[in-house]
Amino acid sequence: MGKRIVIALGGNALGSNLPEQMNAVRQTAKAIADLIEEGHEVVIAHGNGPQVGMIQTAMTELTRSDPEKYIPCPLSVCVAMSQGYIGYDLQNSLREELLDRGIRKGVSTVLTQVEVDPADPAFRNPTKPIGAFMTREEADKMVAERGYDIIEDAGRGYRRVVASPRPQSIVEIDSIRDMVDAGLVVIACGGGGIPVFKTKGNHLKGAAAVVDKDFASCVLAQQLNADCLVILTAVEKVAVNFGKPDQLWLDSLTPEQARRYIAEGQFAPGSMLPKVEAAVQFAESKPRRSALITLLEKAKDGIAGKTGTSISL
Amino acid sequence: MGKRIVIALGGNALGSNLPEQMNAVRQTAKAIADLIEEGHEVVIAHGNGPQVGMIQTAMTELTRSDPEKYIPCPLSVCVAMSQGYIGYDLQNSLREELLDRGIRKGVSTVLTQVEVDPADPAFRNPTKPIGAFMTREEADKMVAERGYDIIEDAGRGYRRVVASPRPQSIVEIDSIRDMVDAGLVVIACGGGGIPVFKTKGNHLKGAAAVVDKDFASCVLAQQLNADCLVILTAVEKVAVNFGKPDQLWLDSLTPEQARRYIAEGQFAPGSMLPKVEAAVQFAESKPRRSALITLLEKAKDGIAGKTGTSISL
Repeated sequence: MGKRIVIALGGNALGSNLPEQMNAVRQTAKAIADLIEEGHEVVIAHGNGPQVGMIQTAMTELTRSDPEKYIPCPLSVCVAMSQGYIGYDLQNSLREELLDRGIRKGVSTVLTQVEVDPADPAFRNPTKPIGAFMTREEADKMVAERGYDIIEDAGRGYRRVVASPRPQSIVEIDSIRDMVDAGLVVIACGGGGIPVFKTKGNHLKGAAAVVDKDFASCVLAQQLNADCLVILTAVEKVAVNFGKPDQLWLDSLTPEQARRYIAEGQFAPGSMLPKVEAAVQFAESKPRRSALITLLEKAKDGIAGKTGTSISL
Repeated sequence: MGKRIVIALGGNALGSNLPEQMNAVRQTAKAIADLIEEGHEVVIAHGNGPQVGMIQTAMTELTRSDPEKYIPCPLSVCVAMSQGYIGYDLQNSLREELLDRGIRKGVSTVLTQVEVDPADPAFRNPTKPIGAFMTREEADKMVAERGYDIIEDAGRGYRRVVASPRPQSIVEIDSIRDMVDAGLVVIACGGGGIPVFKTKGNHLKGAAAVVDKDFASCVLAQQLNADCLVILTAVEKVAVNFGKPDQLWLDSLTPEQARRYIAEGQFAPGSMLPKVEAAVQFAESKPRRSALITLLEKAKDGIAGKTGTSISL
């Protein structure tokens, strides 16, 4: 009866700073434990926007404090650190919640690298803002010294932008599969994974990029041959004509219908759009695979078919 | 023929900053791949002194830059981040080295929490310096605002000191065991593990402490029922009367002999002493268990009995 489920946790499941995260993961752990208690095999992926922003800002402050001693920290290393930070809180909370329910199951975070294509068009058009706001002078310095791409953000200052390339495959997939097969609850692909690309031979080099966690979760779910990809977000269902008089909440969608709505521009880029696109990609990848978009606290009901927006063939 | 081996990597295996680490891990990967090529099951633990120092300093600079926005980052979170940072470089290098040799084996870093005893006497006498030097004024402020323990370090300024309690058990041991049993190369207990202690019920709280990686490796090796604990350091063998005319390099030691030398004060605290103590603890824990202390590049010869200092019953 149990399904193999990959869950993509959004920002609201983790909060945006240290104390928020400590609290948020407790609720998140309850929602995930509900699924495990029902007998599902659960693999957890998550975003890291505020966390990697905080770490990148901290590492920039470190270099500022002593530029001779501390060279700039690559973004891939900041993503790796964020996997440590978030994974620790998440596995700690989930372990406690499971034990409180009398469930003895190992929970482990695996550092995950995700391969991206250096020819991905995203590298020619970086759009994802990362880290703290800068003054014009600071921004000019970053462009000159480090070759950063910078945007001006609506009067609030200047920010670094990086590419968000599509994930091609999960480097540690064999380990993750072995762990899931062994009955462990696995946290993987944190922050969409540490983006790396092949250079010469077998070498994987860190990319100055961030991978969208919904797409990474989709690839993870495909490579694990999961039954279900659950994308948790701030709304219970996907809507079309969002915020208009004829707004319509959707219970289920075929990939074809979803693509039509995408073409109409129904979903906001950087928000609902990548979720729907990732859901479509997973649902289409093999028969009997379904994707679900809903609220964290509705995950259990959603998997039981009671709510959320389900995307399947 | 293959043995189950837990390797404790010291500072020289990782370097002390970003570029050093990138280079050091390549050599480290070769030494470890040699053991895997010989058919041994290898589990890797490592220290994090310079790395967690860098992260803690960065997080302190972050708080300094905007105290309203960024509360001080707990040391346990800094350790978690350092596991991400080091594990990423290490697993990436080792994966490449193995593939270059035609060995297809998954390499994975598992975020690891290590349980410590809140009644450990180390908490009453913190001695481990961490993070950047401070002025007297900064140090006084940290004492007043955060209750830090501070020492004056030989004219170079003031530093925070934290406890280094003994590790009791590895929280994620079941996951690590399953992964090793599945044939994966596992990196665990980074920086000695994220120190946590039981509060009420099943809750594990992060401790403001760092765990010695040699002792953590010893507990890991015991809990994994390893055959051999290999502690890699900057000397090929352990010596008594070190630096004196009657200096003697030791090929092998029984726990009893080692304890006599310890009582004589032969080994430097914070340096060779914890290594010898951890080696003794492992060798005594069960028959046919042996510990080895040697250089990284001599690990293979040491396991073959050709060099290093071996401690066994």
